[in-house]
Amino acid sequence: MRLSKAFQPTLKEVPSEAQIASHRLMLRAGLIRQTSSGIYAWLPAGLRVLRNIENIVREEQDAIGAQELLMPTLQSAELWKRSGRYDAYGPEMLRIQDRHGRDLLYGPTNEEMITDIFGAAIKSYKDLPKALYHIQWKFRDEVRPRFGVMRGREFLMKDAYSFDVSYEDAVASYRRMMLSYLRIFQRLGVRAVPMVADTGPIGGDLSHEFLVLAPTGESGVFFDSALEEQDWLSRPVDCDDHASLEEFFQTVTGHYAATDEKHDEAAWAEVPETRRREGRGIEVGHIFYFGTKYTASMGVEVVGPDGAKLAPHMGSYGVGVSRLMGAIIEASHDEGGIIWPDSVAPYRAAILNLRPGDEACDRLCAEIYERDSSNLMYDDRDERAGVKFNDADLMGHPWQVVVGPRGAKNGLVELKRRATGERVEVTVEDALKRIGIV
Amino acid sequence: MRLSKAFQPTLKEVPSEAQIASHRLMLRAGLIRQTSSGIYAWLPAGLRVLRNIENIVREEQDAIGAQELLMPTLQSAELWKRSGRYDAYGPEMLRIQDRHGRDLLYGPTNEEMITDIFGAAIKSYKDLPKALYHIQWKFRDEVRPRFGVMRGREFLMKDAYSFDVSYEDAVASYRRMMLSYLRIFQRLGVRAVPMVADTGPIGGDLSHEFLVLAPTGESGVFFDSALEEQDWLSRPVDCDDHASLEEFFQTVTGHYAATDEKHDEAAWAEVPETRRREGRGIEVGHIFYFGTKYTASMGVEVVGPDGAKLAPHMGSYGVGVSRLMGAIIEASHDEGGIIWPDSVAPYRAAILNLRPGDEACDRLCAEIYERDSSNLMYDDRDERAGVKFNDADLMGHPWQVVVGPRGAKNGLVELKRRATGERVEVTVEDALKRIGIV
Repeated sequence: MRLSKAFQPTLKEVPSEAQIASHRLMLRAGLIRQTSSGIYAWLPAGLRVLRNIENIVREEQDAIGAQELLMPTLQSAELWKRSGRYDAYGPEMLRIQDRHGRDLLYGPTNEEMITDIFGAAIKSYKDLPKALYHIQWKFRDEVRPRFGVMRGREFLMKDAYSFDVSYEDAVASYRRMMLSYLRIFQRLGVRAVPMVADTGPIGGDLSHEFLVLAPTGESGVFFDSALEEQDWLSRPVDCDDHASLEEFFQTVTGHYAATDEKHDEAAWAEVPETRRREGRGIEVGHIFYFGTKYTASMGVEVVGPDGAKLAPHMGSYGVGVSRLMGAIIEASHDEGGIIWPDSVAPYRAAILNLRPGDEACDRLCAEIYERDSSNLMYDDRDERAGVKFNDADLMGHPWQVVVGPRGAKNGLVELKRRATGERVEVTVEDALKRIGIV
Repeated sequence: MRLSKAFQPTLKEVPSEAQIASHRLMLRAGLIRQTSSGIYAWLPAGLRVLRNIENIVREEQDAIGAQELLMPTLQSAELWKRSGRYDAYGPEMLRIQDRHGRDLLYGPTNEEMITDIFGAAIKSYKDLPKALYHIQWKFRDEVRPRFGVMRGREFLMKDAYSFDVSYEDAVASYRRMMLSYLRIFQRLGVRAVPMVADTGPIGGDLSHEFLVLAPTGESGVFFDSALEEQDWLSRPVDCDDHASLEEFFQTVTGHYAATDEKHDEAAWAEVPETRRREGRGIEVGHIFYFGTKYTASMGVEVVGPDGAKLAPHMGSYGVGVSRLMGAIIEASHDEGGIIWPDSVAPYRAAILNLRPGDEACDRLCAEIYERDSSNLMYDDRDERAGVKFNDADLMGHPWQVVVGPRGAKNGLVELKRRATGERVEVTVEDALKRIGIV
């Protein structure tokens, strides 16, 4: 994309209500625009990041055998009356009446609907386990929306649901999801630590929140640094083997990790001092086993191995896709702007033409740009070098290819790594190779 | 995907309210499930088709320089009051109040919002032309939803909006969109003929509907067969050159095409008899130039070349993405089921293992499946051959790779083309090559 043509309206001044870095930077960099309180339009560069996050989530969910479908945004109140949640859910639920006076709602989550869809389709234990997910816009009518996409009202969530014949199988489903989540967050370039969360009346230990470490996080977190050091992408886990899943799960839960709400000083004291990490975290995911709560209340059963009917055990597994974009920025920015991890950046690199009109600069920039124009942002604007440097830093492209007249004559460019500020003068081929364009 | 694991609940019996072929077939093949009146969940195979359609639309919109963003589903009533449409829009608009009593609505279209977003970002004629689009769920509260996704309430639409400094430039934008649409429909494997449509108070000839030819179409259509014979994909049109665009536009509009509402017997009589085509059509797209209607009413201006402010000329351009899935099926099915065009099929081919448990069959099927497991549907179920043949026909995969014990021993399979019924016995390599998997 040529920046002179791109619809990426950067802002010099941001609204005073933007209190946190990610909100300010997303507005300043032209990634989002608020259209109503807590409701945002995603401008082209912002949408590219959102899609990159979504695709990583999708690939890792598919990798554990979860199947993607898409449920609608609007649901009938009838469905929620069957589970008993229609009256229990508070004012965060957006309730709607259609032209015939029928009660609808904008889905804040999908346990009821997926249970209903599952129940209509699956009749036998032989078709289990099943894990189904979708990535869809949700609405929660927050009383005071704030922090940009971090606490918006219309937000994009991936929610998955597992169905199993027994508690033991449901535990395996839960562990597969935990692995999938750890892989997702690692690929997104953030460290998200799983913390034990409340299970409410369900009991047990099968509820974890995943918190991205960032100084502006809403919760205090305490954890063993051993958790940070794991490479989940290269760890061999056989997802079809309960023993392999259990071994993996013990690695995770065998190390101390807790939010301030659940912090246990006695257990904390047992973590070697050099491995104690304290900080703040932003919740970006939650996995939860809740047994037969919905299948039983909604009367969904399958025929079991002995011919008797049974209510499948369920779990639900959420990732805040739009929220993650804010969380990634909170975890990865500096005074100059955003520092995108390579995996989610809207473009792999920016090409900065320091002297548009100079024949050597124009030619070299065009040559680089045409190598992969859909993944490069070419700043071909008739602007001063300083403006281009600042905007590239603000937009946070992982690499900047700086093309000035002196280097261009010799076919050389300056390659800057946004995260470290490191600059090297290299040939075009070398630059493309380092950026990952061959 | 292995069919034994896939969440694709086929139905033997369909609800009696499913009156048309596409609705019945989408339910029977397990592509969708109704969750409320006129609101559907897209099951995995249905979602794959929807994404394929969406991606073709996206690629062809990007190809003419349109930029994708994403506007939210909910809009503030305030915005629609500025254009004067809030009160004018009928009961199809779903009106909502949030917890603070503020009026929202579920967007049925986005002229107001895009004009507002554009106006906040673009201040100079130098940044024009701009074409912006999004692919988002819309809601129209149809009084009597029917025909499945063809007239649903929550539906997926691609809507694009162009902004130009002058009428002449707006005409060029309109023509680029017409080309993009003709390419989209051709790639989707359907023929959609553009027909002049009403322009209302705007006047002029810049309003066209695109109708997919299908016997169940809602409108009668009359057109010159010369329009069917064009290959828009190979036609060279220079989208930056007004003369090239005009020449293209004359090719389209120079041939007779009209719905029954606009049919002109005198003009029809001038079409050579052998080229007269009559039939029925389903509207799947609409392009429309409407001048400064929204920019003027909403007070959106840019600085023109002479320093004076001007209201940009706009057009809007819609494709019914979810509706297209129904239209494609209406245009392409037989008694056995769906016949997917290659470009939108959920899977490229089905592998039919006629004797699971037979060592040669299992081995050969696995070998084929592993060549491209994400694009093949492997029917590994323990079912009779007849069931597998019927289900493969119903689901409409473009190719069927039939693996029986006799052929398998010699490394041969029977390859069936769904559209023609043609069968040939070939080697695995030959089959994969014909399917397009190398």
